[in-house]
Amino acid sequence: MKIPFKSLISFDKNSSVPLYIQINNAIIKNIQAGILPTQTRLPGTRQLADLLNVHRKTVIAAYDELLSQNWVETIPQKGTFVAAKLPTIQPTILTENTSKESWHNKVRERLNNNSAIYLPPHIQQKLAFNDGLPDARLAPREEWAKLYAHYVRYADPLSVGYTDPQGSIRFRTLFAKYLNETRGIQATARHIITTRGSQMGIYLAGLTILQKGDIAIIGELSYRAANLTFKQLGAELVTIPVDEEGLQVEAIEEICEHKKVKMIYVTSHHYHPTTVTLKPERRLKLLAMAEKYQFFIIEDDYDYDYHYANTPILPLASADRYGWVIYVGSFSKQITPAFRVGYVAAHESIIEEMTRLRRIIDRQNDTILEYCLADFLENGDLKRYATKAMKVYRERRDFACQLLKETLGDKIDFKIPDGGMAIWAKFSKDIPLLALSEKVAKQGLYLANGQTYKDENPMLNACRMGFASMNQKETEDAVKILKKAI
Amino acid sequence: MKIPFKSLISFDKNSSVPLYIQINNAIIKNIQAGILPTQTRLPGTRQLADLLNVHRKTVIAAYDELLSQNWVETIPQKGTFVAAKLPTIQPTILTENTSKESWHNKVRERLNNNSAIYLPPHIQQKLAFNDGLPDARLAPREEWAKLYAHYVRYADPLSVGYTDPQGSIRFRTLFAKYLNETRGIQATARHIITTRGSQMGIYLAGLTILQKGDIAIIGELSYRAANLTFKQLGAELVTIPVDEEGLQVEAIEEICEHKKVKMIYVTSHHYHPTTVTLKPERRLKLLAMAEKYQFFIIEDDYDYDYHYANTPILPLASADRYGWVIYVGSFSKQITPAFRVGYVAAHESIIEEMTRLRRIIDRQNDTILEYCLADFLENGDLKRYATKAMKVYRERRDFACQLLKETLGDKIDFKIPDGGMAIWAKFSKDIPLLALSEKVAKQGLYLANGQTYKDENPMLNACRMGFASMNQKETEDAVKILKKAI
Repeated sequence: MKIPFKSLISFDKNSSVPLYIQINNAIIKNIQAGILPTQTRLPGTRQLADLLNVHRKTVIAAYDELLSQNWVETIPQKGTFVAAKLPTIQPTILTENTSKESWHNKVRERLNNNSAIYLPPHIQQKLAFNDGLPDARLAPREEWAKLYAHYVRYADPLSVGYTDPQGSIRFRTLFAKYLNETRGIQATARHIITTRGSQMGIYLAGLTILQKGDIAIIGELSYRAANLTFKQLGAELVTIPVDEEGLQVEAIEEICEHKKVKMIYVTSHHYHPTTVTLKPERRLKLLAMAEKYQFFIIEDDYDYDYHYANTPILPLASADRYGWVIYVGSFSKQITPAFRVGYVAAHESIIEEMTRLRRIIDRQNDTILEYCLADFLENGDLKRYATKAMKVYRERRDFACQLLKETLGDKIDFKIPDGGMAIWAKFSKDIPLLALSEKVAKQGLYLANGQTYKDENPMLNACRMGFASMNQKETEDAVKILKKAI
Repeated sequence: MKIPFKSLISFDKNSSVPLYIQINNAIIKNIQAGILPTQTRLPGTRQLADLLNVHRKTVIAAYDELLSQNWVETIPQKGTFVAAKLPTIQPTILTENTSKESWHNKVRERLNNNSAIYLPPHIQQKLAFNDGLPDARLAPREEWAKLYAHYVRYADPLSVGYTDPQGSIRFRTLFAKYLNETRGIQATARHIITTRGSQMGIYLAGLTILQKGDIAIIGELSYRAANLTFKQLGAELVTIPVDEEGLQVEAIEEICEHKKVKMIYVTSHHYHPTTVTLKPERRLKLLAMAEKYQFFIIEDDYDYDYHYANTPILPLASADRYGWVIYVGSFSKQITPAFRVGYVAAHESIIEEMTRLRRIIDRQNDTILEYCLADFLENGDLKRYATKAMKVYRERRDFACQLLKETLGDKIDFKIPDGGMAIWAKFSKDIPLLALSEKVAKQGLYLANGQTYKDENPMLNACRMGFASMNQKETEDAVKILKKAI
């Protein structure tokens, strides 16, 4: 049987993929599909070149590739043949037979029961009142692309290998200075570990200090992903109220009188989810209590950089004299969540323990991204981006808040937040969020379904509504959909 | 007092940093240092332009930047002044007073005791017989840089935000096909979760299946970082012997007769540390036992892609009918460790649990790197790089093994490994590794100090010696240093 090589090997002369690689790939595909069985003789290079109307050198290069990958073998004086023993096994049909139902359940039974960990899915709509995310369109993507490519190309071979689990020393040194200048935190490189983001920072902090059964205090309500993290680590969660000035820290004293408290979790700026800011007097009181009762404070300052009204209130960590505060943050809000660098700043002994644990849960951070970020810090770009983005977000806050008030009137109740990227919107009782969320989803708008905090407060009909990731036009469209649905 | 603006504001006209930003930065520095106190009047733009001999537009741009960052304020008809309220607090001197010794110990006492987790530091020497690392100089850095920059610039805004914690669906789909073709593993996208690397895969697998006190079987010896991971997760480790054919799986039966075993950890190809490969009969026996006694197998196939002698033996996962095998791997060896993408392929129920936990320990993977890798898979580049690197590594293995034998004679004893990137070298008793390692370190050569496995076997005087990351010249230099020291 004559093999129709010409029609089997298709390629595109205008493609950016080199011709010889296209030919190489085409031949491999045919071998894998069994169209060119093992030991089939391939045409001579000159013959195939004529057949395909390409230069002979191209075919030689393609054959060399095939040879180097062991797809073909050359027999002197005889020609080139599809290898007797193919380098990979024949593809088998993708089936689902690894998951027979009875065994599925058997496997399930033997797993730890983590099913309680429910978190909303990631958002795939362009129109979205999300949890309070930045607009990736404002991120310094061009600079990021350039710097990253530069370091991948030219960084020392050792630094693209295994590196220090605590993070790059250059980045940590520059970042300590930045923390000092922007937040009054007296840190040096030794007091910092880099993480992939705030979430890893919270997990590592919890893993370092919590034992099963330890008491951890959180606000009611509090950031869901953090609650779940502490639960996963075996902590017993005790809640205290949150009002317009943040956590009611006085309530802690009473708990401490009766029980040994191991830690408290606080988002000190723009409290998650209700967006209030912990007032200075309460901050000092909280610190004094941590010293007295010797508990740790995990301070998640995810939103420090976006404050629209006044200068921000310095974090607890800036006034921590004895190492009780573990300060967690990331660059997700200043750059974008896909730029995965976060950090923890804390007492040296804590950072040492965290570094050991970091080695276990994820060998090391992304060295190249840390290099990019070091440049951003050094040349002042990071502050510039944040400042520019802040102006945009302030305008978007004002626009969204006014439009929502005007359009929805008494159907929605919220306070204009001092900062951050979301409002805490309480909906009128006659508009159940679960139904509303489903309804607007059909029109292409994401709105939280209000279930996240239901187990803490079943009567709640509220959700966070991020305003930062949509421009005015998009916000108008989104509010239109909302209005129509209500 | 007249302020010497000309000497305070230095810049470099040849720098790649725009002039107005240099001027902006210089002024900020002076404000921060207190040299330009709050409410100082800055010169007019024309005046400063003359003083600095730059275009007036440059000064205007610099002032605009200062304004937008709130470092200065403009008072109409009066001029530009250093802001009364500076956007950041005054930098304080970096001190170490957060770590007063007594408090240092107090904090330490309150932490979980993880000090047992000892791992050797990362290597900073260019000459290194490391644990078996690839040579970053062979990595497709140019292609990686190009693809990454492309996706950072042009990827959809949603995909540089928060994404699926299980990993990109495009990548998982292509990778399932790749696992099928190269390893005979019948997986689809649903059976895969992406991780940052093998280490996170091992941790997640352990976290998913292990409860405190569960029995985990490991070889004696076994991969150190994995042992520490299971210990950290509260498992009780039970060892079985390892011989020339890998784990002596017969020993498992006896343990299972007396105790409930939860899992076994195995590096099935080029066993870590001793480089032996688990023979096919033992693989089948191990699988049969897993089904009978219902324990999980964590199969860490970190070295599958580098096998020099024959075609590799298919992983246990390829013959697993009932979902007991959790298959862990990464691209650290094929690209470089700084390219942080790994994976776990397993039964659907396991992947679901792992995804929930992944969300907790580290929000999501690096989406952009997954996109790059998807391209590498799609255009066949990954296989090409691996095949090319394999040839180089095979030559390096042969060269290093021969040179070590010739030069060190009976001072060193090792078997030439079938694959992988390291030999398991037993040193003569009269050359204690601890001293040797210190001695050669002074000459710029890294050699493991043999302490890693001491607690399992105190008499051991052996270590892994990676041969893949050095070229012939470097290996020659390294062996010269070794010889001189011995």
